[in-house]
This record gives sequence, structure tokens and C-alpha cells, in this order.
Amino acid sequence: MSAPKFKRVALIGLGLIASSIAHAVKWKGLADTVVGHARSAETRATAREIGLVAEVFETPEEAVKGADLVILCVPVGAMAAVAERIAPHLAEGAIVTDVGSVKQAVIEAVGPHLPAHVHFVPGHPLAGTEHSGPRSGFATLFVNRWWLLTPPEGANTAAVARLRGFIEGIEANVEEMEAAHHDLVLAVTSHTPHLIAYTMVGVADHLRRVSQSEVIKFSASGFRDFTRIAASDPTMWRDVFLTNKDATLDILGRFTEELFVLQRAIRMGDGDTLFDYFTRTRAIRRSIIEAGQDTDAPDFGRSGAPKAGE
Amino acid sequence: MSAPKFKRVALIGLGLIASSIAHAVKWKGLADTVVGHARSAETRATAREIGLVAEVFETPEEAVKGADLVILCVPVGAMAAVAERIAPHLAEGAIVTDVGSVKQAVIEAVGPHLPAHVHFVPGHPLAGTEHSGPRSGFATLFVNRWWLLTPPEGANTAAVARLRGFIEGIEANVEEMEAAHHDLVLAVTSHTPHLIAYTMVGVADHLRRVSQSEVIKFSASGFRDFTRIAASDPTMWRDVFLTNKDATLDILGRFTEELFVLQRAIRMGDGDTLFDYFTRTRAIRRSIIEAGQDTDAPDFGRSGAPKAGE
Repeated sequence: MSAPKFKRVALIGLGLIASSIAHAVKWKGLADTVVGHARSAETRATAREIGLVAEVFETPEEAVKGADLVILCVPVGAMAAVAERIAPHLAEGAIVTDVGSVKQAVIEAVGPHLPAHVHFVPGHPLAGTEHSGPRSGFATLFVNRWWLLTPPEGANTAAVARLRGFIEGIEANVEEMEAAHHDLVLAVTSHTPHLIAYTMVGVADHLRRVSQSEVIKFSASGFRDFTRIAASDPTMWRDVFLTNKDATLDILGRFTEELFVLQRAIRMGDGDTLFDYFTRTRAIRRSIIEAGQDTDAPDFGRSGAPKAGE
Repeated sequence: MSAPKFKRVALIGLGLIASSIAHAVKWKGLADTVVGHARSAETRATAREIGLVAEVFETPEEAVKGADLVILCVPVGAMAAVAERIAPHLAEGAIVTDVGSVKQAVIEAVGPHLPAHVHFVPGHPLAGTEHSGPRSGFATLFVNRWWLLTPPEGANTAAVARLRGFIEGIEANVEEMEAAHHDLVLAVTSHTPHLIAYTMVGVADHLRRVSQSEVIKFSASGFRDFTRIAASDPTMWRDVFLTNKDATLDILGRFTEELFVLQRAIRMGDGDTLFDYFTRTRAIRRSIIEAGQDTDAPDFGRSGAPKAGE
């Protein structure tokens, strides 16, 4: 299905996700023009320097004028203020979407400000790296990744379809769901894992008996994976936890209960409980590989190591 | 420094680590002969089929005869029984080492059985994948990885040096430390992170409101990293937690305290605490990249994605 071409895409915020969208649109020819705005003068200057978009505006109001697709790529905590500013300047029939990691909070922050003549279709691309800023984007960030859409009750189906076509044009896979359900799913697959990774890195940081250099040197053992997660953008993640509070606390509570089951098994030397638990979790890993969301090449295919017999 | 060549290396256990050692020795010419033994007939048959070693023996006693280097590659829980069987058959001056993930428990299990005429130098290569068995090994598993040695008090320095040379010949980096300290460092960098990853996957598994297929589909968001860790060999990890109990419970306790600090900050909407915590952990990630223990290429260099401007 060929993607319907937008005339003018406005990116509000020019970080990793926005810059990747800009590159992807150029790569796949999905719009005539892409423009943008960022809050900081330094980001705007960088975006101009690298020719990220056709024009970088000093204000969000100017950036959205005449745009038929507006993508809000600012931290969730900044969405309400941006929505309030741009609302009077949005074109008739414009589609407004976002890329925030939580959906209910974004709908509550943005929805009330938008005029009736635009189409609000909140979204969330499940993609990212540990980097930030306008230089960090690349065209294929979203390829074969999921991009979730949470159109509110009564959303215009043609607008949703058009946005879906755009996202599929970037080669992402689209799935629609209720905003509340999105927030719970993400609490499980992303938000709570991130919090746990942050916590483990924090524990290592505080420990006096094991030096930080030892933790860093010997971190290929599992800790390294945690630190990659824990290097994510602090602003974004602060806002995620503040705005997806209920679902996160729900999952955190369950997590601590499970952890105490295992901790108790360790304290009591109960090898069978541990073995059964670990065996069951291995099966989930297999399913993820089969679902095409990961590879089981050695070291994630990092090093091209020769396999047995080579 | 060129590695002193061993005449005969005996691998007891023929899983991922042992098979990788076999390939590495062949690759770098570090021994005249490599032989092995595995407990299961199926593993022995596979090892013979792929020509993993020069000869596969039916018993560990036969495998260690005449070997000047014996490497115990069995689960930590099996070490005592193996040590008891091979002890009367070890050659004069043989170096006996292991690859177990805990060191104090291995020393307690193995040490008392070994005769005075061999040199016991426990070790632990910090390397692995999520796979198991004789087919899973490859020659470069240990390249640029740390391999820790915990020679006991009074260990023969020439023997330690010879083993160090062998390991450096496989292109790993050697560091020596006290066994108790090793166990604490690994509790931080590996054991507790693994337990936490298992727990998070277990939480997802139990959750009824979010389907397993959703968890799997949308797992590129951070959960995927946890599942890789949680796919490790259940036998090995059961034994790790049973034998590194004190250090693990120590770190787990700290972890839960930290988690409750963050959980409380979330419940109370304390964004500053969250932001400061996440900012501090990002710095640790940078240090790991600088220490050469990881790459910050997008997606760990998985997909060769074009960068901004390409």
C-alpha cells in the first residue's frame, strides 16, 4: 500500500525521534516539505547546520502553520504548554500526533487544547537508542518496529488511516489499541524494566566495597545490559514515571512480590523453585526470537564471531 | 608474551564454555592435544560427531590421565563429585582450574579432594551467550573479555603464570583477586542483575491483563534486554544462587531499598529525585563504553543502520 504523501510535516521538538522521522521521510519521499521547531536555540542551530529539515522556526506557532501533519516530539511534561500555544494556528483538517511513551497523560494534556477542526491521533513508536538530540537520528530507526496508535473514541477513520499509511511508509508496523491498555502494556515491557535497570545501576554506584572501576571493568556479565537501558534520557523517563504512575506502581508491586519469592528460595536453599522459575522464563525468550523482535546470533551479532567449526 | 604450550588439556564438561575453549585452543595453537568428557552420552556423541576434541572419554578419570591442564567446566553443584573422582588420576604438577561463576563455593567443593602434587588455580571467564551445549561454542567467545583468577593463599606462582599465559593466548584479559571479593563483585555485576531479569520476565508471564503475545510483540522497548539475560542456562544459575547466597542476598537487600526510594518518588510525584537518579546512572554507562566493554553504535551495531546524513 503506497503511503499518501503529506504536503507539510511539522516536527515540534528535534531530538532522536524527530530527527529520525525527518531522515525517514526524506528517505522514503513521504512528504513534500518537513519543517521543525525546538525550544533551545542550540538545538535549532544544530538542526540548521545539518540541514535536518527545510526550515527551523523560532516558535512552535510558526512551525505548525499550514502543516497537514504535526508531530509532537517533546517530553510528555511539555506537551500541554506546546498544545496550548499551537492550537490557534493549526490548519483545517491537520492531523496532530505525538511520539510520547505514555498515552493517557498525553491525551489529557493535549486533547482539551485542540480545536475541533483537527484530527488528534496519539501515537508511540517503540524504538530508540541511548542517544539524544538532533544529530542522533537515522532513517531506519523505525524499520520493523512497532508504532502504536491510540485514536480516541470517535476519531476520524480516514485520518487514522492516513497516519497509518505514513507510518507504514517509514516501514514500521502499526497497531491500534486503547490508551489505558497501552499504558499498562508499556509499564510491563518498558517502564518497569527501565526503572529496575536504573535501580541496579544505582546500587552498583553506591556500593563502597566494590569499586566503580571494577563494576565497569567486569560489566560484560549482565550488568552491561542494564546500563544500556539506564543511559536513556533522564527528562523523558522522569516524565514517563510521573505520568504513568498507576500502571507502573501496579507492575512494581508485582515485581517486588516475585523478587521476594526468589529471594526466599535463595535464603532457604530451595534449588527446585529456582530451577523451575528459570526454565519457564527461557521459553519466553524463545518466543521473542520467533516473533522476529530479536536475534539469537552470538553477542546479538555484534562481533561476527566464527561459529563452532569455522 | 607468547603462551607456553600445554601438552594435554582435559575439558571436564563439554558445554558452551568448554567447547569455546576447545575451538580457541585449536585457533591459537595453545596445546598439542585437547581431550574431554561429558556426563551425558548424548553430549559425548555430539562432541565426537563435530570433532570437538581429539578424544572424548566415557569417564572423567580417563580424561584427566596425563593432562597437564585440567579445566572443570561442569555446573558448580557438580564440582565436588567430579573432583573426588579425578583426584587419584591427576598427573604430577598438573594445573587444575575451573570456569565456575562463583569461586568460594568451588574452592570449598574442589580443594579438599585435590592431591598436594597438583596446582589448583580457580578461574572464571566473564563471557557467555544464551546458548548451551557442545555445538554452541566458538573460538572468539573470550576475546577481549575478562577472565578472573582466584589463586588460593600460597598458590604456586609459576603455575599461576602459566595459566595466565594460556588464557592470554586465548586473547582474554586476566585479573587476579581474592575469592570472596570475586563473589561480591559478581553478585553486583552479574548474579543480582540476572535474578532481577528473571523476575521481570516472570512478572510478565503471570500477568493476565496483558497477553503474552503483546508482551512478546512489544518487547523491543527494554523488556527484550531482560529476556536475553533470563534465557541463560537454568542449571548453572540455580547453582550460582545456591552457592553465592550471602553476597546475592546482600546486594538484593540494597536493591530493594533503592527500588523503594524510586517507587516512593513516583508515588509522591517527586520528579527531581527521579531526574537526579537517572542523570547519575547515565554517567556509569559512558564509563563502560570508554572502558571498551561495549559499543554505543545504534542498536549495538545490530542492523548497520545509516546514521544521520547518510
